[in-house]
Amino acid sequence: MNGAESLVHTLLGAGVDTCFANPGTSEMHFVAALDRIPGMRCVLALFEGVASGAADGYARMAGKPAATLLHCGPGLANALANLHNARRANVPMVNCVGDQATYHRPLDAPLTADAEGWARGASAWVRTARHAREVGRDAAVAVQVARTAPGQIATLILPSDTCWEAGGEVAPALPVPAAPAVDALAIEQARRLLRGGERVLLLLGGPALAAAALADAHRIAAATGARLLAPGSNARVARGRGRYPIERIPYPVDAAVAALAGVRHLILVGAREPATFFAYPGKPGRPAPADASVHVLARPEQDAAAALAALAEALDAPAVSPPVSPPPEPARGAIGPEAFAHSLAALLPEQAVVVDESITFGRSFFPLTHAAAPHDWLQLCGGAIGEGLPLATGAAIGAPGRRVVSLQADGSALYTVQALWTQARERLDVTTVLFDNRRYAILQHELAAVGANPGRTALDMLDLGNPDIDWLRIAEGFGVAAARATTMEQFNDLFAQSCLRPGPFLIALAT
Amino acid sequence: MNGAESLVHTLLGAGVDTCFANPGTSEMHFVAALDRIPGMRCVLALFEGVASGAADGYARMAGKPAATLLHCGPGLANALANLHNARRANVPMVNCVGDQATYHRPLDAPLTADAEGWARGASAWVRTARHAREVGRDAAVAVQVARTAPGQIATLILPSDTCWEAGGEVAPALPVPAAPAVDALAIEQARRLLRGGERVLLLLGGPALAAAALADAHRIAAATGARLLAPGSNARVARGRGRYPIERIPYPVDAAVAALAGVRHLILVGAREPATFFAYPGKPGRPAPADASVHVLARPEQDAAAALAALAEALDAPAVSPPVSPPPEPARGAIGPEAFAHSLAALLPEQAVVVDESITFGRSFFPLTHAAAPHDWLQLCGGAIGEGLPLATGAAIGAPGRRVVSLQADGSALYTVQALWTQARERLDVTTVLFDNRRYAILQHELAAVGANPGRTALDMLDLGNPDIDWLRIAEGFGVAAARATTMEQFNDLFAQSCLRPGPFLIALAT
Repeated sequence: MNGAESLVHTLLGAGVDTCFANPGTSEMHFVAALDRIPGMRCVLALFEGVASGAADGYARMAGKPAATLLHCGPGLANALANLHNARRANVPMVNCVGDQATYHRPLDAPLTADAEGWARGASAWVRTARHAREVGRDAAVAVQVARTAPGQIATLILPSDTCWEAGGEVAPALPVPAAPAVDALAIEQARRLLRGGERVLLLLGGPALAAAALADAHRIAAATGARLLAPGSNARVARGRGRYPIERIPYPVDAAVAALAGVRHLILVGAREPATFFAYPGKPGRPAPADASVHVLARPEQDAAAALAALAEALDAPAVSPPVSPPPEPARGAIGPEAFAHSLAALLPEQAVVVDESITFGRSFFPLTHAAAPHDWLQLCGGAIGEGLPLATGAAIGAPGRRVVSLQADGSALYTVQALWTQARERLDVTTVLFDNRRYAILQHELAAVGANPGRTALDMLDLGNPDIDWLRIAEGFGVAAARATTMEQFNDLFAQSCLRPGPFLIALAT
Repeated sequence: MNGAESLVHTLLGAGVDTCFANPGTSEMHFVAALDRIPGMRCVLALFEGVASGAADGYARMAGKPAATLLHCGPGLANALANLHNARRANVPMVNCVGDQATYHRPLDAPLTADAEGWARGASAWVRTARHAREVGRDAAVAVQVARTAPGQIATLILPSDTCWEAGGEVAPALPVPAAPAVDALAIEQARRLLRGGERVLLLLGGPALAAAALADAHRIAAATGARLLAPGSNARVARGRGRYPIERIPYPVDAAVAALAGVRHLILVGAREPATFFAYPGKPGRPAPADASVHVLARPEQDAAAALAALAEALDAPAVSPPVSPPPEPARGAIGPEAFAHSLAALLPEQAVVVDESITFGRSFFPLTHAAAPHDWLQLCGGAIGEGLPLATGAAIGAPGRRVVSLQADGSALYTVQALWTQARERLDVTTVLFDNRRYAILQHELAAVGANPGRTALDMLDLGNPDIDWLRIAEGFGVAAARATTMEQFNDLFAQSCLRPGPFLIALAT
């Protein structure tokens, strides 16, 4: 058995059975091993950022890591932006990066680069395999690290001779460390704060945004008057009819400050202390009031759902019913953010997976879609735009049988547009709604905040027109059927049809 | 004056007047400064790898660095693969990377990443600005580093407050260090070797591949019987009628070994000691004979052209005339690599710039096009595929008035296909010939070398069909007119027409 074969067997034995791949010459022995050994679903990406973003989306829905297969330092570099996003989402992932043979590296051939150095900023664990006989063990550790709460990125660099040499040994799956137990003192402290009569806000992140955890959080809120809120960006939120709604901290600094005004105690439940996305002159970097006390009920790596359940019990908080709203109606007439949100709420299929990289156009979507059919809502967590299409691709593979609805701003879509081809090849049930506003709208807002009257140079740098991107041709060029909507009626029809037909579809929404 | 304004003034004062940009929120003060201060040509890219590849192509033709404008660590990460290629091409470049404000970084907001760590593997120099008053000085050093022979990549990270704060000071351009003089002893040693009767090969790289340097190399070869060869990949080679032809070390290991067989003395002239691209079991990592002595006439950072001129003088080598070949004729009939090369040689316009990322289909292009009209030939130097379209984009901006002919493999094109839009927006005179073979042909060859009878999994990972990419739709979607050629006659007509009309055009060549 060569090293590559021990790698594939070890990954499969540890439950990693999906690989998002963009291989090169140095990975041919790995490709050959994947070919010989049944059990691994290999999904080809035309660009590495598609592979890493898809592995992120897959893990969020499947609840376990996928592997990626990347080619040398530069292939890893192309994956980094979405590895950064996945790291911020606390997603498990195992990157397999082929590289120069151990003895060839000193010759500094053209593709030789510092793959380890590049991996570090996006990985919890980086190792370069040294010999075929160690590859299985290295892979087992990589999966163990990836599955360690709250979910981590492990990067294993594989010099080509460690793959082709004999002596490979399959390693058994290593035990996943239990998440650190929630501290009974932290639960007792939270109970006292909640009974103390001061204004308390629970900030819910990670597993605290699953359906049962949100139900417990609402029990606590109803029993104590505490407020509930989620961070601005979240890996996965369980939403829709019969579930318990939660709002998020808004993106604009002033709105974020307003949302947290008056809070005396901020209790973190699987979330980190919130910071604004960027600094602005004269504005605070933390949206919470300066005099608010910050407490931790559960750190991101702890079981926030168990913590909420224990806290609800400690408070003797009775169960509460989820809110009942009238069934939403699709909007008619002109296209706009609120009209779109109403149609989405009305037409979203049961158990849809919504991937939201809608940026400025979508800021009102979340509060207006609580009454949609039950669904999961996935966001870009690291702010590196260009993850939406890959995330939707991976989510569809991680959640077969569920329609993925990919809400996608045009500027962001252009970073990793190649994901459409993988959706076509794998015949994934993804409806992409492309908000075609032909500009970096968020940057136009930011520039307006900076100085007056932008001139030609600035406008050209924030404008995606001249020439306009023809999204129907782009989608069809990658094999995805597409149509354009210029009214809400057209959108409603196209969207409903797309959810009934198998495979991907793109709706270019003129906004 | 704020820091951003001092940055723009300093760059312009140091001769950097072109910026390939993909800005974000943290760069808005830089964008505003570019808007207020005339003189900088700003070229928008839809993806950062387009910006860095274009800056590479620009520098190769303009002979001076461009700036890039990138957004935070992940924006830099997206640029890394083509920064790696540019580093291998010894190209000057100044990267300006916006980042979190100095005081905001400790809050670890979502887009916070280790930009410095990622920059290092692709940069000769990395600095994070600390205060607005130092930004001008930092920028002047960055340009100085970039222009230091043989051409280097300098990365300046700019926390947003260093751009928006007052106190900016314009720094004067710093002197560019003279290249280390060529050693007279090295010239004398080379002269003796060349007169010594043993088999000598001059390996010419970098500035030794300019027209006058190649003329001197041919004087030397004619006078001494020495052989001449260039590395497999080169930043820029002066070629065509009236110039002196040079062949390259072939890519396949066996062919490379055969090309260097019998060499007793290998003299490096602006080139590094050759290594094979990858290691293969049982094959050598260096193609030169194990018993060959390696000598250095000029290191990459020395003036290899001056070294050749001095050596030719020391040898009293008489001038030789360039070879005269009959004018090539365009091919007719079926499409194939040799037919294509004949048509290219016949139809290439005077002073064209050829960008070659043709990979497997193009291996015979170089030897068959020596008799084309005078042109420059540019290649990907770091092996990270996905630089061709950006390189062509930047070369067109760096060499106005010259037709750029972009020879592009389909698999590689898909990494940075967004470059087509920048070509359309800037109305660049680029003819892209897209070799549409619907597979990673190089990897199919490599896999065949590894094991027998690839199965479905392996084939799917190396195949770009299912669905086929529709290159006409993709090009037109990005605003570039396009047509398909299925015979050489069709290609000849389309190519000739494209060279007469302004702006970009794409020919999908069914191969």
